[in-house]
Amino acid sequence: MTPPLPPGSTIGILGGGQLGRMSALAAARLGYRCHVYAPEAGSPGMQVAAAATVAPYEDEAALARFAAAVDVVTFEFENVPAATLAALAPLAPCRPGVEVLRICQDRLAEKAFLERAGVPVAPWRAVEDEAGLAVAIAEIGLPAVLKTTRLGYDGRGQAVIRRPEDAAAAFTRLAPKPLILEAFVPFVAEVSAIAARGEDGATAVYDAVENRHRDHILDLSFAPARLPAAEAARGHALRVAESLGLVGVLALELFVLPDGRLLGNEIAPRPHNSGHWTMDGCAASQFEQHVRAVAGLPLAPAARHHDVVMKNLVGPEGLSLWPGLLRNPEVVPHWYGKSEARPGRKLGHANRLLALGSLSTLEDAAALKGL
Amino acid sequence: MTPPLPPGSTIGILGGGQLGRMSALAAARLGYRCHVYAPEAGSPGMQVAAAATVAPYEDEAALARFAAAVDVVTFEFENVPAATLAALAPLAPCRPGVEVLRICQDRLAEKAFLERAGVPVAPWRAVEDEAGLAVAIAEIGLPAVLKTTRLGYDGRGQAVIRRPEDAAAAFTRLAPKPLILEAFVPFVAEVSAIAARGEDGATAVYDAVENRHRDHILDLSFAPARLPAAEAARGHALRVAESLGLVGVLALELFVLPDGRLLGNEIAPRPHNSGHWTMDGCAASQFEQHVRAVAGLPLAPAARHHDVVMKNLVGPEGLSLWPGLLRNPEVVPHWYGKSEARPGRKLGHANRLLALGSLSTLEDAAALKGL
Repeated sequence: MTPPLPPGSTIGILGGGQLGRMSALAAARLGYRCHVYAPEAGSPGMQVAAAATVAPYEDEAALARFAAAVDVVTFEFENVPAATLAALAPLAPCRPGVEVLRICQDRLAEKAFLERAGVPVAPWRAVEDEAGLAVAIAEIGLPAVLKTTRLGYDGRGQAVIRRPEDAAAAFTRLAPKPLILEAFVPFVAEVSAIAARGEDGATAVYDAVENRHRDHILDLSFAPARLPAAEAARGHALRVAESLGLVGVLALELFVLPDGRLLGNEIAPRPHNSGHWTMDGCAASQFEQHVRAVAGLPLAPAARHHDVVMKNLVGPEGLSLWPGLLRNPEVVPHWYGKSEARPGRKLGHANRLLALGSLSTLEDAAALKGL
Repeated sequence: MTPPLPPGSTIGILGGGQLGRMSALAAARLGYRCHVYAPEAGSPGMQVAAAATVAPYEDEAALARFAAAVDVVTFEFENVPAATLAALAPLAPCRPGVEVLRICQDRLAEKAFLERAGVPVAPWRAVEDEAGLAVAIAEIGLPAVLKTTRLGYDGRGQAVIRRPEDAAAAFTRLAPKPLILEAFVPFVAEVSAIAARGEDGATAVYDAVENRHRDHILDLSFAPARLPAAEAARGHALRVAESLGLVGVLALELFVLPDGRLLGNEIAPRPHNSGHWTMDGCAASQFEQHVRAVAGLPLAPAARHHDVVMKNLVGPEGLSLWPGLLRNPEVVPHWYGKSEARPGRKLGHANRLLALGSLSTLEDAAALKGL
């Protein structure tokens, strides 16, 4: 075990988006400097960082300079190339490490890992060619979802196959990328839980939340989830963090079946949109836990002190909601410093605070009032 | 009334210390960029700001460039020269304005203002020379405190006069600066309250706190103050904010006399050390209120959701407490990014969270456990 980073140390963050920005804000509160590395100048993370490197993820000289300038490296999203983290690993501690990134970047590796960790998943098959797709459909049945194994998010890179005759078009659209066929899950809800694991092996897990999507983008998280499966979801998230030997935080997304069973869907090995409620519902947010883990500090408690409904503010509509949310006394507003309100772009979020334990007594309309 | 600043606007902050840093962190959460102007490079505020100007406060060309680069100007401490703010005022909106700064920079103007605003103060006299000091002592009586009218903080720039023969030495030590003689106040406690006033004239006031000092530096704040005078202190703070026509936040420090009466001591027209508890005890901190006011946004509620004991972390001793505080599950730690732990330097603070309403039931030893 390495000693905790003293205040004044520098945390290197790969990626310049809102997750890095909010991590950097949490790091600053703990006295750390942040150095953000991203291909885009002026990114949300760079606006609040003590230092920035604007360079492609493949620029080995820039990566070497970055590694020399920081005390530890982390990443804010899992689509940073694994080769980038692998190039940095000999030069600076990387938390989480490249193996975690490799698993979570590849839906095949991720599914296999979840199964090994004891988290049930929907039936799945690797698909290498059109003939393989036919075999997979025969084995799994329809409907099913064909997905690229890499770089999918917010519903991109997937196609639902309902009838055998849809298969060819789906394959043509997504190939030649490596693909996975997953059984269609008739889920009644999606839950997720954020787990943290420190350098010392200690863990913490937040209450699971129920997520609602709109246009394939997370729209709302209800914290805590008002579902009997919530406790099991937390347990699964903890088990995944432990099995990965994670140092950092992760989100585990799970589907809730009509009979209440859970199926693991995705691991995000970093702070996650469905954990933004922790910024105002807990004394220590997911971002603080991430920074604590990465810096080798002890984790903080993950206890909830308010129930929260989190609403994402997306695109022009999200922008239009902002003035009203600023006037809403029950809402804590967050905005990410993005320069344009393009459709589908996550611009900020609003945490509506509710008294601890009150969410379970509310109908949706009451829980969402003013959001 | 000017419209609220849209997200992405730039807030200029004069001063690079921890108050500017925590204001910048709050501003970032609301989607603003910050541009910190300070004479020292690498200051705590600059580490989290999108832009920085390192220049003396008297550099008119640098000030003009700064004004052109920002949408509004504020200051993080009241010892920024009034001439600096006056030079900026024609170039950019300044909130609070230069008149507020002038009043709060000068203990004579401040005392006169407090009296006009209806806040009782201890008897005081301006002292222009040694003969004037003798007259003032004759009128006010002893003991009394001789203070410089400007640039005093944390007990600097003052001398207690207990016997007539102490007067000459006190005068010699502090002259030729402009001086004020104030009656010695046999206070039993010090309380303070943070009030905010928005561009629209709306106000908000946090619960008053009891402050304890060590070596003339704030050591502890108990939120809320466990004193009958607490409500009156809040009222005084609000009255001062309204009388000043403030746009921003202020702290009003008051002495509590043995009979429970309050005497106003100082106004700090900016976020204040005794308001740091709001960062974890309220949904919106004093820093967020300050940013909201300065940006022309509606104020947020100032309601308390936890009782808090705030401990300042000062100098090498504060640094030595840090690892233990990071392990304390009841504490939310804050560190300011200062490069050296010099004696007397405020390096950070720790907010111990207690259940709402529980502080009044605790003895000091229990309230301070683990701090």
